[in-house]
Amino acid sequence: MVIIMHPEATQENIDEVVSVIKSRGLDAKIMIGEQQKIIGVIGDKAKFASVPVDAMKGVDHTVEISKSYKLASREFHPESSIIDVDGVKIGGAEPVIMAGPCAVESREQILEAAEIIKAGGAQFLRGGAYKPRTSPYSFQGLEVEGLKYLAEAREKTGLKIVTEVTTVEAIDHVEYYADMLQIGARNMQNFGLLKEVGKTGKPVLLKRGLAATLDEWLNAAEYIMSEGNPNVVFCERGIRTYETYTRNTLDLSAVSAIKHLSHLPIIVDPSHGTGKWRMVKPMSLAAIAAGADGLMMEMHPNPARALSDGNQSLTPEHYREVMTAVKKLSAFMREELD
Amino acid sequence: MVIIMHPEATQENIDEVVSVIKSRGLDAKIMIGEQQKIIGVIGDKAKFASVPVDAMKGVDHTVEISKSYKLASREFHPESSIIDVDGVKIGGAEPVIMAGPCAVESREQILEAAEIIKAGGAQFLRGGAYKPRTSPYSFQGLEVEGLKYLAEAREKTGLKIVTEVTTVEAIDHVEYYADMLQIGARNMQNFGLLKEVGKTGKPVLLKRGLAATLDEWLNAAEYIMSEGNPNVVFCERGIRTYETYTRNTLDLSAVSAIKHLSHLPIIVDPSHGTGKWRMVKPMSLAAIAAGADGLMMEMHPNPARALSDGNQSLTPEHYREVMTAVKKLSAFMREELD
Amino acid sequence: MVIIMHPEATQENIDEVVSVIKSRGLDAKIMIGEQQKIIGVIGDKAKFASVPVDAMKGVDHTVEISKSYKLASREFHPESSIIDVDGVKIGGAEPVIMAGPCAVESREQILEAAEIIKAGGAQFLRGGAYKPRTSPYSFQGLEVEGLKYLAEAREKTGLKIVTEVTTVEAIDHVEYYADMLQIGARNMQNFGLLKEVGKTGKPVLLKRGLAATLDEWLNAAEYIMSEGNPNVVFCERGIRTYETYTRNTLDLSAVSAIKHLSHLPIIVDPSHGTGKWRMVKPMSLAAIAAGADGLMMEMHPNPARALSDGNQSLTPEHYREVMTAVKKLSAFMREELD
Amino acid sequence: MVIIMHPEATQENIDEVVSVIKSRGLDAKIMIGEQQKIIGVIGDKAKFASVPVDAMKGVDHTVEISKSYKLASREFHPESSIIDVDGVKIGGAEPVIMAGPCAVESREQILEAAEIIKAGGAQFLRGGAYKPRTSPYSFQGLEVEGLKYLAEAREKTGLKIVTEVTTVEAIDHVEYYADMLQIGARNMQNFGLLKEVGKTGKPVLLKRGLAATLDEWLNAAEYIMSEGNPNVVFCERGIRTYETYTRNTLDLSAVSAIKHLSHLPIIVDPSHGTGKWRMVKPMSLAAIAAGADGLMMEMHPNPARALSDGNQSLTPEHYREVMTAVKKLSAFMREELD
Repeated sequence: MVIIMHPEATQENIDEVVSVIKSRGLDAKIMIGEQQKIIGVIGDKAKFASVPVDAMKGVDHTVEISKSYKLASREFHPESSIIDVDGVKIGGAEPVIMAGPCAVESREQILEAAEIIKAGGAQFLRGGAYKPRTSPYSFQGLEVEGLKYLAEAREKTGLKIVTEVTTVEAIDHVEYYADMLQIGARNMQNFGLLKEVGKTGKPVLLKRGLAATLDEWLNAAEYIMSEGNPNVVFCERGIRTYETYTRNTLDLSAVSAIKHLSHLPIIVDPSHGTGKWRMVKPMSLAAIAAGADGLMMEMHPNPARALSDGNQSLTPEHYREVMTAVKKLSAFMREELD
Repeated sequence: MVIIMHPEATQENIDEVVSVIKSRGLDAKIMIGEQQKIIGVIGDKAKFASVPVDAMKGVDHTVEISKSYKLASREFHPESSIIDVDGVKIGGAEPVIMAGPCAVESREQILEAAEIIKAGGAQFLRGGAYKPRTSPYSFQGLEVEGLKYLAEAREKTGLKIVTEVTTVEAIDHVEYYADMLQIGARNMQNFGLLKEVGKTGKPVLLKRGLAATLDEWLNAAEYIMSEGNPNVVFCERGIRTYETYTRNTLDLSAVSAIKHLSHLPIIVDPSHGTGKWRMVKPMSLAAIAAGADGLMMEMHPNPARALSDGNQSLTPEHYREVMTAVKKLSAFMREELD
Repeated sequence: MVIIMHPEATQENIDEVVSVIKSRGLDAKIMIGEQQKIIGVIGDKAKFASVPVDAMKGVDHTVEISKSYKLASREFHPESSIIDVDGVKIGGAEPVIMAGPCAVESREQILEAAEIIKAGGAQFLRGGAYKPRTSPYSFQGLEVEGLKYLAEAREKTGLKIVTEVTTVEAIDHVEYYADMLQIGARNMQNFGLLKEVGKTGKPVLLKRGLAATLDEWLNAAEYIMSEGNPNVVFCERGIRTYETYTRNTLDLSAVSAIKHLSHLPIIVDPSHGTGKWRMVKPMSLAAIAAGADGLMMEMHPNPARALSDGNQSLTPEHYREVMTAVKKLSAFMREELD
Repeated sequence: MVIIMHPEATQENIDEVVSVIKSRGLDAKIMIGEQQKIIGVIGDKAKFASVPVDAMKGVDHTVEISKSYKLASREFHPESSIIDVDGVKIGGAEPVIMAGPCAVESREQILEAAEIIKAGGAQFLRGGAYKPRTSPYSFQGLEVEGLKYLAEAREKTGLKIVTEVTTVEAIDHVEYYADMLQIGARNMQNFGLLKEVGKTGKPVLLKRGLAATLDEWLNAAEYIMSEGNPNVVFCERGIRTYETYTRNTLDLSAVSAIKHLSHLPIIVDPSHGTGKWRMVKPMSLAAIAAGADGLMMEMHPNPARALSDGNQSLTPEHYREVMTAVKKLSAFMREELD
């Protein structure tokens, strides 16, 4: 923490601030220039967290300089982590692809989707059994029934299952039927939920909040990890900006930012990130080129009949086209650009 | 819903889209101009919700024109609602003030705060017993113990209690001890939580999400109301923008927007909205002048010792100054400007 | 400037950074804690501006702590400035109101508008002769002819004239006919234009850029002032955010922020700030309550025939209603709340 | 344009709106459902532009459905355009790379930079002679002297020159010395400047405004094109969002959006887009994979001595590394993925 004093601050003001800081067991260094009076604070950030320096006399403002997450930080864990989901490794040499419909709509739909997904070469089947929807009158998901269909699809295809858990109550069911728990964008700061999935030990796919900073996202991972679950994978899915042409603004620079700040893997969801199926192919290729550890994309056996998010879903034909291109590009990246 | 066809769309494309729409029991009207081909869709929005028109041939894009909330809408409930919290009326002639520390830190602190709050003229005591914090290492609240202190403060002062509930598990406790349940910004789309507070019937203070649109906010109220609880009060607390000088950007135009779109009351929280105690007075006055039904503000008996958000907390002295000004202005608004 | 070194930075890295800083005539102070290594830099910011510390070994990131504007800053000019526009004082006890149509459309329209404006009690007539429009096919203004009509309206009513200047070439004309030059939001960082209006000495109304930070806005004023023109008045007109219900998000906290950071006056434009005539009254009252030095609002003798921005224009009747309320509130603020 | 009437709107209200629309030579279609009353308007958008329907009785709101740009639109020009800059083709099979320092600082610096740029394989040298800087006290560029150094660098290397023009007065000089005129982000809606570069016929690199929507950006191109200059190339350089880790948020989805909406080429500037040299390589590769027609990147012979933007500049070594990777990836994209 750095405290910038007002140019008119007196020596007495400075002494008082330093005295409060030292009383909390922290160390303070004073720097005085012609136009600037600064106090640097060194020590455990937690001790400082609630010192209301801004309310003290002579203080102009303060600037935060250190990070509040540790377990998720690369500083304290320089080597990249690989998250193993029942044999499928996320964060390794090969990108991991998760695909499937937005929502599980019926047994037939999800089984049909799974066959197409498997044939196309993805490793994970996605599909929501619990759907967080803006309106209470929209389709809310098949819940446990949907989870069972997903598990059946795994039996038939060998695909891993990733699906969203939206409430603490549903964790037991999702943990039982799925291989990886997804925390959706709207729940990225549902701290009660984060703590509980942290207690499961099950791999977690942590989507970025609608308007979450990187720092908040990393702290959300810290919530899960501090409960004992180190198996967190980030998923960039677009952030909210003033631009309305796309559903969200896909922030691909988050891929290299997260890789710099954290040792955990990160994948990209171009379907939610753009809201347009036409953009899924170019943004998938861009994500892979940017170094993403994988992709999550929506594919529906028949988008024109989808109960949600149909406009951003690939058809089976487009899915195969994207997969072919992604696989070629990943091989190229691995073999030619490393 | 309006469907804008591509200029090159064929009659066949148009016919197909119309046919799908009609197959869902909706009515379609075609408008064809020199440069534009448009299909208007009339009927129950829910039926249309998942028709992936964008994925159909010849469709350029679609535009949403109707609202998805009803119970919260003024269209279906033209008269303004007054929410009665155990005798205190929110949405009536007089603005309702909720004040108190960010967090309940100790019995002494909350009792001391309550006395000051009461003496200054506010009707509600606020204070978090469950604190949603960005970092898992920050102070997380006293939980049930904190609720008991709040209840004790009510006994001594007669103030009503409003406090945040962050998880479904905590609802029973908060419902038992508090007069009004607060849903915080980070939980505005925690739909599981919204549904459960909707089942309680207890008045709910619904804060706007960090980056929530008015439409999403109104739909969040709809989640609560559709479970049978009509007692919802909105609280504007600033939205996330590119500006970093203030903690958030307080959107006071939301006051008149909500009053136009909904019959429910709306109050304003200038403490979180700006993050600076110095701005609480001018923004409180502005909120009242804009027509807000009340205010929520942070006051700490000793901000320099606060465990969280000290920089935005008023001192008792500033609190009294703000209250005096707010009361004068409200009386003026009521008597001179109506 | 504060330089935060990487936890793994060596003493050699630190020495090198300090050596570069000292070579530029700046002073550096090192602070080393268990987890943090920080270098504080004291001295003339300009000398440091282009030192690419981030590119030096061992540097994690840097944080700016000082301001780059001086003439506009309250630190160097503690007393509030009053800008005198040919006898009308902006920044004094009474708020100054500027009103009129978005664009000058005809002699009749602007003369009719001026009479209504004058009768309602505003001091300034506004109206664009040069219109910056998103599309090249929209109405672009009457240019010099429009300026002449404005001057004629001044002759007839005694109102001062404020009108936008969009190009360096037009400055001479606008300076000749108007009393105050307006810099529009889209030109807030048109530095060539800022410098040239800085050379005129004429009062300038500086609108906030669509997505300008307070710091950028203050620096834009600094461009004008550093050319010798101290007569700058800020105008908050809403910023661009994700919310689309309003045309922009009116940031009323900018009023108290600017008053804290600068000695210059600030007025508020609720017409552009909201894009809805219905919101002009509540937002005008809120601006006055927040401490604004004045208002700018759109009024059209016949909004239904306006060539631009008709939806946000007040009718004459609404204008009179807003003016009556604003005047009552200002008197109350002056007499009862100071 | 679609007009959504209030549910309570009377037949009289509807008739009046329709009558006004027809009086302007436009056609109106009425759609009435149980809960919705909609009026569709067909015809020339310009005629409708200023009809203040929102101010008419019974109107709830309006929704824009058509585009205001034509020359820039793919609808009216389905085939992709290739912009020829003195023999170098932008928009063809091979991506075009523009590289160089942020600012021309001296003859030596720019000549040294040019040799490195040329050897690395880029086709264009970039470098600012006129620098738009937030603070008036920052380095503002060498102006004509800088242009001459750029021209000399072209003589020695054969590189094309692209450089920013910030004022109408400077157009003649920049046009004389450079091969391509750059319009910077801060001037994207400096319409006077756009019109004048539109009169030159010289190829224009049009950077996206700090907070410009795609629609505004396309309209800015329309300003240039409507003056007779069809040679416009877009450059995505990041938009302003709430995220502060990166200088801007690079919106790579703009690449496929622009390619869908327009026939003009688009390149990407990852240096300004991220503000961090470390991110230039991954974001360059991502841009190419997303289908960009080229890149603009900052390279300084000695970033640690740069007078501006040093932190985002590549060293010569990093530049060569990025170029090697970009060339390999482009070849792969061309040969394997088309």
